[in-house]
Amino acid sequence: TEGSNQLKNEYINKTLKKDVDKVVDKYDLQDISGQCNASQNKTVSYCRCWKSKKFPLCDGSHNAWNKETGDNIGPLVITNNSQSNKQ
Amino acid sequence: TEGSNQLKNEYINKTLKKDVDKVVDKYDLQDISGQCNASQNKTVSYCRCWKSKKFPLCDGSHNAWNKETGDNIGPLVITNNSQSNKQ
Ligand code: FES
Ligand code: FES
Repeated sequence: TEGSNQLKNEYINKTLKKDVDKVVDKYDLQDISGQCNASQNKTVSYCRCWKSKKFPLCDGSHNAWNKETGDNIGPLVITNNSQSNKQ
Repeated sequence: TEGSNQLKNEYINKTLKKDVDKVVDKYDLQDISGQCNASQNKTVSYCRCWKSKKFPLCDGSHNAWNKETGDNIGPLVITNNSQSNKQ
C-alpha cells in the first residue's frame, strides 16, 4: 500500500538484515583492540549511517549520503593511541 | 522551499550538531575501557539511530523509532568481558 511504502521510505536502515527485529552489533574490547592494532593507523571506524557495504564497519558511504541529502552524519571512530604510545 | 524541506525530511540526523559538516565521534580504547568498567554490566552502547538524548551514547530511543516506523536499528554494544573475567 501507499501507506506502508511511505513508512519504508522513512527507514534509516533500508537494506541490512531486514529479517531481524533489531540490528545490534556486540564486540568485546579485546576484539576491537585487535582490529585497531591490525590497522595501519591503530583505528577502527564503525558505521552509523547504515549504508556501508562493510557494516558494521564504516566504508565511507556516509559521504555519498551526506552529499545526496545535505545530512551531516559520520562514524564512531575508535583509536588505540594509548597502546601505540606505550609500544 | 518544498524541495529543501523534502531533503531535510530525509536526514537521518535531524537535530544533532547540525552546524558541523560531519558528526564524527572519536574515542580511545582506554576511554571506552573506563566507560565499560564504570557500568554495572561492563558494557557501553553507542547510538546508531541519531535520536538519543545522550548521543553518542545509546539511551534506548531506537526502540521508539523502530516502533514508529517499522525500522530495525539498534546500537553498537561494547563489552569488557575479557577484563571482567580476569579480575
Ligand atoms: S559508511 Fe556509514 S558512517 Fe561511514
Ligand atoms: S538510542 Fe540510538 S541506537 Fe539506541
